[in-house]
Amino acid sequence: MINVRTDLAIEAREMYIKKHSKDIDGVVIEEEQDGDIKFTTVKVKNEEGAKKLGKSIGNYITIDIPEFTIYDGEIMDEVSKVLSKVVKRLIHVNEEKTALVVGLGNWQVTPDALGPKVTEKIMVTRHLQVVMPEAIDDSVRPVCAIAPGVLGVTGIETGEVIKSLVDKVKPDLVICIDALASRRVERLNRTIQISDTGISPGAGVGNNRKEISEKSLGVKVIAIGVPTVVDAATIANDSIDLVIDELISQVSSGKEFYNMLKDIDKNEKVALIKEVLCAHVGDLIVAPKDVDMIIDSLSKIIANGINMSLQPNMDMEDINKFIG
Amino acid sequence: MINVRTDLAIEAREMYIKKHSKDIDGVVIEEEQDGDIKFTTVKVKNEEGAKKLGKSIGNYITIDIPEFTIYDGEIMDEVSKVLSKVVKRLIHVNEEKTALVVGLGNWQVTPDALGPKVTEKIMVTRHLQVVMPEAIDDSVRPVCAIAPGVLGVTGIETGEVIKSLVDKVKPDLVICIDALASRRVERLNRTIQISDTGISPGAGVGNNRKEISEKSLGVKVIAIGVPTVVDAATIANDSIDLVIDELISQVSSGKEFYNMLKDIDKNEKVALIKEVLCAHVGDLIVAPKDVDMIIDSLSKIIANGINMSLQPNMDMEDINKFIG
Amino acid sequence: MINVRTDLAIEAREMYIKKHSKDIDGVVIEEEQDGDIKFTTVKVKNEEGAKKLGKSIGNYITIDIPEFTIYDGEIMDEVSKVLSKVVKRLIHVNEEKTALVVGLGNWQVTPDALGPKVTEKIMVTRHLQVVMPEAIDDSVRPVCAIAPGVLGVTGIETGEVIKSLVDKVKPDLVICIDALASRRVERLNRTIQISDTGISPGAGVGNNRKEISEKSLGVKVIAIGVPTVVDAATIANDSIDLVIDELISQVSSGKEFYNMLKDIDKNEKVALIKEVLCAHVGDLIVAPKDVDMIIDSLSKIIANGINMSLQPNMDMEDINKFIG
Amino acid sequence: MINVRTDLAIEAREMYIKKHSKDIDGVVIEEEQDGDIKFTTVKVKNEEGAKKLGKSIGNYITIDIPEFTIYDGEIMDEVSKVLSKVVKRLIHVNEEKTALVVGLGNWQVTPDALGPKVTEKIMVTRHLQVVMPEAIDDSVRPVCAIAPGVLGVTGIETGEVIKSLVDKVKPDLVICIDALASRRVERLNRTIQISDTGISPGAGVGNNRKEISEKSLGVKVIAIGVPTVVDAATIANDSIDLVIDELISQVSSGKEFYNMLKDIDKNEKVALIKEVLCAHVGDLIVAPKDVDMIIDSLSKIIANGINMSLQPNMDMEDINKFIG
Repeated sequence: MINVRTDLAIEAREMYIKKHSKDIDGVVIEEEQDGDIKFTTVKVKNEEGAKKLGKSIGNYITIDIPEFTIYDGEIMDEVSKVLSKVVKRLIHVNEEKTALVVGLGNWQVTPDALGPKVTEKIMVTRHLQVVMPEAIDDSVRPVCAIAPGVLGVTGIETGEVIKSLVDKVKPDLVICIDALASRRVERLNRTIQISDTGISPGAGVGNNRKEISEKSLGVKVIAIGVPTVVDAATIANDSIDLVIDELISQVSSGKEFYNMLKDIDKNEKVALIKEVLCAHVGDLIVAPKDVDMIIDSLSKIIANGINMSLQPNMDMEDINKFIG
Repeated sequence: MINVRTDLAIEAREMYIKKHSKDIDGVVIEEEQDGDIKFTTVKVKNEEGAKKLGKSIGNYITIDIPEFTIYDGEIMDEVSKVLSKVVKRLIHVNEEKTALVVGLGNWQVTPDALGPKVTEKIMVTRHLQVVMPEAIDDSVRPVCAIAPGVLGVTGIETGEVIKSLVDKVKPDLVICIDALASRRVERLNRTIQISDTGISPGAGVGNNRKEISEKSLGVKVIAIGVPTVVDAATIANDSIDLVIDELISQVSSGKEFYNMLKDIDKNEKVALIKEVLCAHVGDLIVAPKDVDMIIDSLSKIIANGINMSLQPNMDMEDINKFIG
Repeated sequence: MINVRTDLAIEAREMYIKKHSKDIDGVVIEEEQDGDIKFTTVKVKNEEGAKKLGKSIGNYITIDIPEFTIYDGEIMDEVSKVLSKVVKRLIHVNEEKTALVVGLGNWQVTPDALGPKVTEKIMVTRHLQVVMPEAIDDSVRPVCAIAPGVLGVTGIETGEVIKSLVDKVKPDLVICIDALASRRVERLNRTIQISDTGISPGAGVGNNRKEISEKSLGVKVIAIGVPTVVDAATIANDSIDLVIDELISQVSSGKEFYNMLKDIDKNEKVALIKEVLCAHVGDLIVAPKDVDMIIDSLSKIIANGINMSLQPNMDMEDINKFIG
Repeated sequence: MINVRTDLAIEAREMYIKKHSKDIDGVVIEEEQDGDIKFTTVKVKNEEGAKKLGKSIGNYITIDIPEFTIYDGEIMDEVSKVLSKVVKRLIHVNEEKTALVVGLGNWQVTPDALGPKVTEKIMVTRHLQVVMPEAIDDSVRPVCAIAPGVLGVTGIETGEVIKSLVDKVKPDLVICIDALASRRVERLNRTIQISDTGISPGAGVGNNRKEISEKSLGVKVIAIGVPTVVDAATIANDSIDLVIDELISQVSSGKEFYNMLKDIDKNEKVALIKEVLCAHVGDLIVAPKDVDMIIDSLSKIIANGINMSLQPNMDMEDINKFIG
C-alpha cells in the first residue's frame, strides 16, 4: 500500500482532525512566537492520545522556518536561536554533561544527508580534555558527534551502531538529527520538529528505521528533524484524492455514484498510482531543484542551534572560533 | 498551464497516436537491434510531419538502455558502442574535422549536470598540436569541449556563449549534450536520444532553452540527451487523468455525468495540481534517490560513445590513455 | 629550471630588494589601514620600474587577510568591505556599466578552483532586464559571470574564450579572479592582490596563462588573485638556499670554499631538487590539509567584495536576497 | 622534531640498510611477479627484527602499482586481482566468516579520504540474510563496512568506535584501510601495503593513531594502506640532507669542515625547516594536483580486491551486480 505516514506530530494531528472532525483527547497544542519565528508544541499526555496520534507520549515542538530563510544569514541565526531555546527546555543542561550528537541518514543521497551534514558542523569537544587540556575548562561541555551511515551501506543496523557507542562512550544525552518525510509539499524544508521521545520505527527517507529512544539506549534522546522529501506516491495519491473529493462535492445527489467513487478509492487507487509511477514506485522522490543548497543551509541552522544549547557559557562567536 | 511537452520524438509520436488513434504522415519509424541493445529511428520527412509531431525535420534515434546497465561495465560499453555507431551515421567523419562538444545544463543541480559531466570525460585534443605536436598525428581529430553554464548562473544566454565560441573556434561539427524532460517515468534515465536537428526552444530541465542548431550556428549540430527528470506536475497531472479516464470508462452510460467530468478536466485540473503542489509547482522535480550515481554512469556511457565516434582510428584503450 | 616567479608584485619587490639591496626607481609603496585590515599599494609608475619588477605599469594592491579570518564571519565581512573599497578605486562605477566576471582556473583541482567558486557567488543580473524587468531598475548594474575552464580540459585557450565572449557581450569592464603562486609559504591563502593591469602571461597554478588585459580585450581588466599553492620545488629550492646561506655565513673565511658553494648553487641545485622530488617535479603542490574549506571561505570573501563594488546602490542584505 | 617515520615496512628496511650498510637479522625479503605486477613480502620473523625495523612481527606485502594504472581499467583490474590474492593468503577464508571492513581517515580531506571511499564500494551483505534472505545463500559471506571518522571530527577515538562495534557485531576478521605517509615522493600513490599485523600507533596522514590490532580487538586484523601524502617538512628535510651529503662528498679532505656540517645537521636543521615552512609546519602536505581523481581510482582498485578476496565464490561480474 501507499505509505501515508507522516513523521510530524503536527501533521498527524491535522490528519486526525480532518478524518474525525474533532481533536484528540490527551493531546494539547500550544502556539508561541519568538520575534518573527512561530513555533508550536504538541504535547501527547497519555496513552490514549499516543495511540490516536500514532506518536509516543512526550513533547513535539515544530518551528516554522520563514520563507527565504536560507538566503538570509540573519534569519538563519534567529531560527538557530529559537531552536537552541527549545532544545534547552527539553534537556537538563547542568546535569546531563556528555552529549553524543548522531547524524542519521545517507550523506550520498542529498535530501537524506541532513543528519551527516549537521554532525560536521557540531562543536566537538570531548577529546580536548586529553589533547589540549589548557584550552578547555569546566565550562565547556564534552560533546562528540558521529554519522553512523545507513543499513544498506554499512550492513549494520544504525541502532546497533548507536547502542554500541552509547555503551562505550556513556553519554548523558543523545541528540539525533534526521531527514523526515512529510505528507505536505508546503512543509518541505520549512519545518523543524524537535521531540524528547526519540525516534520511533517508521517512515523517514530511509524507511527501515529501528527505534532510537531512552528505552532502547538507556539515556535521554532528543530527536531533531526536517521534512526534506515527499515521495512521488504521495503526490500521485493526493492528486487522486483531490479529484475524488472534488467529484463527490459536486455530485452530492446520486448515492449510487458516491458508492462507486468509494469503490474506486478502495480498489483501484494503488493500481492507478503504479500506472503513473511504473515499477519504481518506492525509489522516486520529489524534491526542490536546489536541494543541495537548501540542505546545506538547514544543516548550518540546526548545528548552530545545537551548539548554542549545549554550550550555554559560550556565545556564537566563541563557538565559531572553536569549530574552526 | 501544466507543461505536457516532451523532448523525446518517440514519446511525442506515442502521444499523437494515443490522441488521434492514427500514425503521422511524414513520420517513419525503424527499429533495430545491436546485440542486446534496441534502438529506434524516428524520421521526420516533411513539414507536415514536423508540425504534427512538434519536432523539426530530421532524424531522432532513441537507444533503450537495458535495466541495471549502470551497474555493469560491460553493458555500459555495449551501449557506448551503439551510441558511437549511431553518431557516426549522422556525421561525415572524414570531412568534418574539428568538433566542439558542448555540455548544456547546470552542474550544481544533479539531474541537470549530465552535459557538464560528459564534457569532463571527452578526449580533448585541439590544443595538442600546439602543446605537444610530437604526441599527435593527422589521425587524431581536433576536439574541444566546454560547459557554458546556464542563464540563471552566468547572466548570458547559453546560445550566445556557444555562438561566440563557434565564431572563434570555427568547428565543423557541434555535439550538444543535455538533460531532457520525459513525460513518462519509465523512460527516466533509460533512454538516449540522438538527433541531427540540434536543440529546439522549449522544455528540458532548464526550461528557457534557445535554439541551438545548424541554422543558428552555421555548422552541423548533433544533439544527445537523456530524460533525467519528470516534473512533479506531470505526476499530479497523470494521476488526475488516470482517475478521470477510469471513471469515464466505468460510467459509459450517463451523458450528463460525462460532460461534468470533461468540465472538471478543463476548469479545475490546474487548480487541483496547485493544491497538491502548493506554490512551488515549477521547482519540484521527481528523480530516483540514487540520482548522483546514475548521472555519473550515464555521463561515462555518453562520453565514451562520443570519443569513439570522433576518433575512429583509435580503440577504447588508446582513448583512455589520452584522457588520463 | 625551477620556477622562481611570483605573481605578487609585493613579493617581486621584496625579492628585488633582497637581491640588489636597494629599492626600485619608478616603484612607489603606500601602506594603509582600514579597521583591522592592512593593505599595501605597489604603484609601478614607468617602464624602468616595470622592467625591474617584472610587472606591467599600474597599481597592485595587496590586502593582508588576518589570521583565523576564515573562521570568523565578521572579519570575513570586513575583508570583503576593504576589497570592495579597493576595487571601487580602480574602476569608474558610473561609466563602466556592464561587467563580466571571469573565474579562471580548474574547479576540479581544489586550490585552483578559487576563480570558478567566486563566479558561482556573483550576483548575476544581466539577464534580468529580459527575464523579469519588473524586479530590476536602473540602479542595478548588469553583471554576468563565467568560468571558462582551463586549456587542458577544454582544448580552447582561456584567452580565446574570454575574447570571444567580450566581443559578443561587449562589457565595459572585465574582472578576472585567479589562484596565484606565491614564493612564500606564509602568504598562502593570506593575501588578496587586486590590480588594474590584467593578467600577464606566466606563473599561476595553471602555468600556461596567456595575457588577459585591456590590450588583448579592448576593455578595462581588473585582476583579483590569492596565492593558494606553493610548488614543492619552491620548498626544496628554499631549503637548499637556506643551508647554503647558513654555511656561507658561518665560513666567512675560506674564499675557495665560498666559491665551491657558489658552484653548487649554480650547477647542482636543479639536480638535487629533482632527486628530492623524482620525476613528478611539476605536478606536486604544497597546500594546507583543510584547503577545501579555505578556498570556500576565500571565494565568499571575494564574491561579496565584488558584489558590493559593482552594486553601490545595494547593501549586503539586498545583494544576498538577489543571490538566493 | 621533524617526523622521519614511514608507514611502509619496505621503506623502513631501506632506511635501515642505508644507515647501517647491512640488512636486518630476523627480516626476510621475497619478491614475486604476477603478470605485469611486482610485489614484495617483508617478513618480520622475531623480536630483534621487529625492534630494528620498528614494525611488529608479521608479514608486510607491498604491491607496486604500474605507472598510469589509474588511467587504464584493465591494469586496475590486474592490480585488484593481485591484491585479492595477497589478502587471501593472509586470511582463512573458510573459517573467518563475518568480515568488518573499516575505512580510516577523514573523507573531507582528499588525500585522507582513501579509507572512507573504499568502504563505499565494498559489497555489503551482512544485513541481507534478514532483509532479503531469498537473494542470499551460504556461499555469500556476511560483510559489513563502516567509516568511523577521525578524532578531531567526532571527539571519539577511532579505536574506541571500532572496539565497540567489534564487541557488538562480533566479526571474525577486520580489514582496515588507511592513507599512509611515505618518506619518498616516488612511492606516492604507487604502492599498496597489506599486512597481517594491524595498525600500530604512529604516523599516517592523521597522526594520532591508536593501535588497531588483534591484541586490541581480539580478532584478526588485516591492514591495507597507500601512501597518499608526503609532508612538506620531509621535502625540506630531504633537500637539506642532499645538499649536506653533496658537500660532504665534495670536501672529503678537511676534517674540521666535516664536523661543522655535522653540527649544522644536528642543531640548525629544524630551525632551517621552520624558516622555510614558517609556522604552519605540520599542516602543509605535498600531493599531486589531480589527487581527487587518483584517490577515486585507488579506492576502486582496493575495494574490488577486497570484494574478490571476501567472496571467493563470486566473480567480478556477480559482485558488481550486488554492489549496484
